[in-house]
Amino acid sequence: MGISQTASRTAGWLTDEELRQLDCIFNPASVAIIGATDSSDRVGFNCLEAILMGGFKGKIYPIHPRHKELLGLKVYAHLEEVESPIDLAIIALNQYATVEMLETCGRLGIAGAIAVAGGYKEMGAEGEELERRLVAISRRYGIKVIGPNTLGLANTHANLNATFYPLGLAKKGNLSIISQSGGVGRSIVEKATDEGLAISKWIGVGNRACLEFADFLQYLDYDPTTKVIGVFLEATEDARRLVQVAGEVAQHKPVVIFKAGETEIAQQSALTHTGSMATSHKVYTDIFQQFGLISVGSVAELVAACKALLIGQVPAGPRVGVMTHTAGPSIIVVDELAKRGCVLSSLGAQTVERVRTLIGPNVPVILKNPLDAAAFGYQPEQYGQVAEVFMADPNVDLLLAMHALHKNWRFPAPEIIRAKQRYGKPTVTCYIANVEGAREHMEMMHREGIPLYITAEEAAWGAAWLVNYARRKGRREKR
Amino acid sequence: MGISQTASRTAGWLTDEELRQLDCIFNPASVAIIGATDSSDRVGFNCLEAILMGGFKGKIYPIHPRHKELLGLKVYAHLEEVESPIDLAIIALNQYATVEMLETCGRLGIAGAIAVAGGYKEMGAEGEELERRLVAISRRYGIKVIGPNTLGLANTHANLNATFYPLGLAKKGNLSIISQSGGVGRSIVEKATDEGLAISKWIGVGNRACLEFADFLQYLDYDPTTKVIGVFLEATEDARRLVQVAGEVAQHKPVVIFKAGETEIAQQSALTHTGSMATSHKVYTDIFQQFGLISVGSVAELVAACKALLIGQVPAGPRVGVMTHTAGPSIIVVDELAKRGCVLSSLGAQTVERVRTLIGPNVPVILKNPLDAAAFGYQPEQYGQVAEVFMADPNVDLLLAMHALHKNWRFPAPEIIRAKQRYGKPTVTCYIANVEGAREHMEMMHREGIPLYITAEEAAWGAAWLVNYARRKGRREKR
Repeated sequence: MGISQTASRTAGWLTDEELRQLDCIFNPASVAIIGATDSSDRVGFNCLEAILMGGFKGKIYPIHPRHKELLGLKVYAHLEEVESPIDLAIIALNQYATVEMLETCGRLGIAGAIAVAGGYKEMGAEGEELERRLVAISRRYGIKVIGPNTLGLANTHANLNATFYPLGLAKKGNLSIISQSGGVGRSIVEKATDEGLAISKWIGVGNRACLEFADFLQYLDYDPTTKVIGVFLEATEDARRLVQVAGEVAQHKPVVIFKAGETEIAQQSALTHTGSMATSHKVYTDIFQQFGLISVGSVAELVAACKALLIGQVPAGPRVGVMTHTAGPSIIVVDELAKRGCVLSSLGAQTVERVRTLIGPNVPVILKNPLDAAAFGYQPEQYGQVAEVFMADPNVDLLLAMHALHKNWRFPAPEIIRAKQRYGKPTVTCYIANVEGAREHMEMMHREGIPLYITAEEAAWGAAWLVNYARRKGRREKR
Repeated sequence: MGISQTASRTAGWLTDEELRQLDCIFNPASVAIIGATDSSDRVGFNCLEAILMGGFKGKIYPIHPRHKELLGLKVYAHLEEVESPIDLAIIALNQYATVEMLETCGRLGIAGAIAVAGGYKEMGAEGEELERRLVAISRRYGIKVIGPNTLGLANTHANLNATFYPLGLAKKGNLSIISQSGGVGRSIVEKATDEGLAISKWIGVGNRACLEFADFLQYLDYDPTTKVIGVFLEATEDARRLVQVAGEVAQHKPVVIFKAGETEIAQQSALTHTGSMATSHKVYTDIFQQFGLISVGSVAELVAACKALLIGQVPAGPRVGVMTHTAGPSIIVVDELAKRGCVLSSLGAQTVERVRTLIGPNVPVILKNPLDAAAFGYQPEQYGQVAEVFMADPNVDLLLAMHALHKNWRFPAPEIIRAKQRYGKPTVTCYIANVEGAREHMEMMHREGIPLYITAEEAAWGAAWLVNYARRKGRREKR
């Protein structure tokens, strides 16, 4: 359920009407590309090609005063020539012309615009003045503006690539991303692709002159195809509203935030990027924690956490059982779990006895958690037996099962799946391989609700954030 | 030059003869696989198949009392039946039989043995006693023992896969890895493969009953095909010798160490893995720093650092120039550089002027480091021009050039290569893409001595460790 059930906008919240307006922008029936042109060097060309490469099914109106046809589409000399209504205008003009054009868009009743150009607040006094004019126009006409200074947005479910990166869209799915940087946002998508994840929305917030992080968070809460939200944040003056809204959203959908700028020098870089003042990094991360958000330290951890929350199952408690046939990676796992406040299960006496019976008295294994079943665990059937014993232990809330690619000892996918189905316990897997070598098993496990990672670090991050999300959820439900 | 020039072994150092003996083990003319058998479930079978899959060109002697032929090879009932000399024996028997067999190996004058089985020091008093017997036999006969409790070793240059993981060997190259864990060692190789790196030696040290980290470090220093050494360490009682030897080796070849067990609970896990007591993690990392070693915090950072040191060029000073057309990732870079004590170049007035002339007066760009050339920098030729201006600045010791995969704005590979050739300055690149999408450019740049990473974090780690290596080297040379 969406969090905005009120009819009129209360401080900091979009109204239902505004949410519907944003939904129209993300699912437009028609798109105008203003400044579309014929040179692949230019942003305008790339915006048009991106729309086509995304496979957009609605009406496409390239706008340019001199061209007649571009990429097989009729070009309109002026926006006013388009007789049908336009839902989304992508403005690929310089910063000054963008503001003029926004006025036209507003007058024509267009729902939303993407202002691609930079040259506003991040450029000092003159730019600030220009940005104020842009905001005033947006308010006057009620037109929603994404940016300025942004790569744009995408919605796989609408086959909409409204960015100037003409690439095929990611697979349709339920992870949505809000990024203060186009480049980091792209990096998240690339990593998510390697991790076998499928995307819903992608939003480059740019300077956030009219729409802030908080607004997009509220929209993604409202959006039924979004199940998990990943956020890359450099800095914002709107931190209070951000955490308040994100905290509310997190009651329904996990919100994972990677805040850059831990060092002072990086904070200065952020300032000249999107013109935002930086608050102390620690202030941010402490507040994130307080508001039940998931605060991570890198793109890789952001994607790992989103993956677990998207594919995995939330555990009933915080106790993790780790089993492996190779001990070293499980030490890395224990480290990463501990750093994130997770608890290792104390195995029950019955579990120890049952594992000993399975393994036999002479196999040199110390029965503890993590359990290194070593040679015994190389066989898939035996691995599966131990996994089931672990799952049956009431002290285990989540099983983290580790394996390494081997020619003759296959990854025990069916056995782990069967164990999970039988005991219904959340499971995370680590399969040490390279990206290509793991792909098939990754898809297989993901279909069964079991996230599979190729490194110990990432598997631990996934498990840890599932546990922490469960904890925070539990705390909220008890209130 | 090797570091052991003395004729007789002095405390903590292998003699020249011992180094030659190790070299014979890593480059054997003949290998015996003791316990080779016909079931792919068993370690003995996998050891034999691994030797075959590695493409070993020397003599292979499978040893088993009952089999006559295995995988097309004649099987010998007993080791004594082999009439030719054996350089390396891979013992795939249980822990008790391994010790007995080692005695036979020693008596027959075999240079070295890999003791695969676990069940020694890591298993308490009885295991400790067994390990003492193993050590005594090794000393008595002068046979070098790798392990016990190890995956084994590999040497791509000898087509030798002496592990029980029958996989094709990695590409022949100059990165060597010493790992206290087979699984983490495998993980390093998998990641290195995704990063386009080629390997020389791979060593699973196991319980280090006879050969310690320090011994392998000394050997790899002596080994001409090793240029960079990556180490995964859980714990060792031999920390003093480790850092002394590693510090010496680091005078000739970079040594990158990932020490696991930052948390106390992970240290306990390490204890039951290879039976080693843990010293405080901070004590280790402080000492590493003191001895000029490169101390990293994850498998990913280990591989990133090794990649830079293997492929890249060591800068003359610590000042990094960062250029990009997408600002966000450069903020991550600045953060990661700053955390590792790097300095951002202050651009000279001439550089600023020249960049402004290139970009033109109206393009909204703040000229600073990192330089976000944004729209201007999307064109490869223009990107190359800015890169050359950066390189020409005497304040820039190393250029970190960032880009993101785009259909129409290709990665400026030839331009960056030309700039590097013209100015001869060390260069690191970040190309935001997924593993598959970056492969071609990665190979192209690596051939030119320019490491290419697909994430901002890893690119920064690479640059930072090049800078830090240069600094330590400089400090040593001044002494």
